[in-house]
Amino acid sequence: MNAIRHTISLVSLGTFQLVRRTRGPHARGFLLGTGLGLASFSAVTYAHSAEAVNPKVNGVQMDTSRFMAEPITDSKALLGDKENMRHRMEILIMEIQAEFCRALEAEENCGQKFKVDRWERPEGGGGITCVLQDGDVFEKAGVNISVVTGSLPPAAVQQMRARGKNLKEGASLPFFASGVSAVIHPRNPHVPTIHFNYRYFEVETAKGEKQWWFGGGTDLTPYYLCEKDASHFHQTLKSACDEHDATYYPRFKKWCDDYFRIKHRNESRGIGGIFFDDIDSPNQEAAFNFVSSCAKAVIPSYVPLVRKHKNREYGNNERQWQLLRRGRYVEFNLIYDRGTKFGLYTPGARYESILMSLPLHARWEYMHEPKSQSEEGKLMKVLKNPKDWV
Amino acid sequence: MNAIRHTISLVSLGTFQLVRRTRGPHARGFLLGTGLGLASFSAVTYAHSAEAVNPKVNGVQMDTSRFMAEPITDSKALLGDKENMRHRMEILIMEIQAEFCRALEAEENCGQKFKVDRWERPEGGGGITCVLQDGDVFEKAGVNISVVTGSLPPAAVQQMRARGKNLKEGASLPFFASGVSAVIHPRNPHVPTIHFNYRYFEVETAKGEKQWWFGGGTDLTPYYLCEKDASHFHQTLKSACDEHDATYYPRFKKWCDDYFRIKHRNESRGIGGIFFDDIDSPNQEAAFNFVSSCAKAVIPSYVPLVRKHKNREYGNNERQWQLLRRGRYVEFNLIYDRGTKFGLYTPGARYESILMSLPLHARWEYMHEPKSQSEEGKLMKVLKNPKDWV
Repeated sequence: MNAIRHTISLVSLGTFQLVRRTRGPHARGFLLGTGLGLASFSAVTYAHSAEAVNPKVNGVQMDTSRFMAEPITDSKALLGDKENMRHRMEILIMEIQAEFCRALEAEENCGQKFKVDRWERPEGGGGITCVLQDGDVFEKAGVNISVVTGSLPPAAVQQMRARGKNLKEGASLPFFASGVSAVIHPRNPHVPTIHFNYRYFEVETAKGEKQWWFGGGTDLTPYYLCEKDASHFHQTLKSACDEHDATYYPRFKKWCDDYFRIKHRNESRGIGGIFFDDIDSPNQEAAFNFVSSCAKAVIPSYVPLVRKHKNREYGNNERQWQLLRRGRYVEFNLIYDRGTKFGLYTPGARYESILMSLPLHARWEYMHEPKSQSEEGKLMKVLKNPKDWV
Repeated sequence: MNAIRHTISLVSLGTFQLVRRTRGPHARGFLLGTGLGLASFSAVTYAHSAEAVNPKVNGVQMDTSRFMAEPITDSKALLGDKENMRHRMEILIMEIQAEFCRALEAEENCGQKFKVDRWERPEGGGGITCVLQDGDVFEKAGVNISVVTGSLPPAAVQQMRARGKNLKEGASLPFFASGVSAVIHPRNPHVPTIHFNYRYFEVETAKGEKQWWFGGGTDLTPYYLCEKDASHFHQTLKSACDEHDATYYPRFKKWCDDYFRIKHRNESRGIGGIFFDDIDSPNQEAAFNFVSSCAKAVIPSYVPLVRKHKNREYGNNERQWQLLRRGRYVEFNLIYDRGTKFGLYTPGARYESILMSLPLHARWEYMHEPKSQSEEGKLMKVLKNPKDWV
């Protein structure tokens, strides 16, 4: 147990107050899919100080105090080469993380805040895991970013080759990956669960050429179907897509329906949204702008639904149904989700960040089936046969 | 929803009272590993009648009323060729199922009974799924038998070849599989969870030769460690093994520790027991007798622990810890368990029987770690580093 017990000591880093946690052997590993975690070696819990960290490069200031923790990449380096896509993506995901966490905290009626763990990876990079647990509005909310570099093992290269990437077989290749991931499980069964993930990937071929692509998506898992909410959610994502390419929303909506399918039950995890991978066209700038629009659409797609339903009354029946659906969520994430599987099979992966996506509570009942005319039955109809919402 | 809604009607079959359930398209599929379910097409719920079913063949009677439902194979055929290993195994698993269900029912303080679903598979065979849910002693208990025949798809043949079976690559081969599986999740955190599975497999090679083998195991998952219980449990299994071969217990104890490992957490699901597969020596008779001894050791290994602890007091802390460990149980079953994965990936598998192994409730907390000197911490030490109990 000593190996996994946290040794707590106070360290000061810049103007952040740090609680350093010396942890067990969490080394090696990263994640490419829709999960939340990358590898870690040591995790650090942050408490924000009142004073901002404002490094200055060529007279330009960067206010890192608006982030949940200090960026993974040194702030001066981030500012020093602002055209570098790695840096632009890191700043984007830091902003998305902070804005989303603050937007959720603002919905908490009793002031519950996110707990922030900043963790590092000896091979390069690290991440910031933010978790709000046992809030009065959010039962469990996880928002994670990670920025990692390292060497892609042959098995991962093989997986990418299978997806059509032109990479050399059997080689270990240098890679860079960064992304933001979140899963929010509210307490009130009338408030849906949301998941999103936006990521950027670079891999160097054996010839030293760089390949890059973006991936991501946002999807909704209601416990009770409100058609108006479903339309609002999909319309917000569609508008973000339509700014860039009118073919995106229909293609990525279908991709999402296909991906988030609990195959053994022949039902969807939720009512979908958008999902895409391997976006490397028409050019890097346009692809980044598209991903940026999608990520910025998360708050307007979701927070109004939280506000609308978070104080609605509900009883034990609604709670039990929510827990059963959360069981299905666990089934999808542990059996089918590419990111979770890939992450957990990677030795030394930071499983606490990956499994942050699991709900605080879940329930499995043998042969439970709601009556078809009930509110629960109405949801099931849509989960069995995904429909168009806009 | 109509497709999955149960149409209930009363049918009488022999002297059993039947509640026939017309169900959706549950077809094709079977299971080879440690899970619980095989495929089904239609499920039938039994209510035992007072009168026994006693088919007579050559003056010999078979009292099927002692079973949880009518055997899958016609009773007269079962009696007609009593030397046939398929029949001997079916009678064994029916007996084990019935004796175990009755032993558990006897521990319920308020008379909760198992619900019995007998289901059939159009390709051949079927199963009997017994579930006791929301009892005062057992929160969720599932005891399943299945007896199926069919054609083994090339992917499954490939999996067996990888395990060293001399089977033709790329062929579909006729197979027979039968087994009993159970997972018992008690309500009181001082009563451990038990899982066992005993199975017999036959496959016909392309040349028409028959290969056969047995597999199985019993393992314990306590929430609080009682060393005396752990020793009693392992000693009971060891005695069953030692009757047959003194090398069995040490080999199968280690196999169990290796198999039930939650690799991403580097901890075991529980305190182990025995686990084995591909047993085809020294001969069929001896292998059957060994499996039979193991299966019959389940009740004496476990029921005394239930009786000893089922009425112990506990509080919310103990309950929350039990739910967290049940989350780990779900992680193992959905991510690593061969039988569950194989079963769920098989189109049309009877997932309700497979997922019967999941607890009624489970919990996931971010970064939960018990204090090393606490009772929870003492269990963790043993889960991190499996030890010898006898």
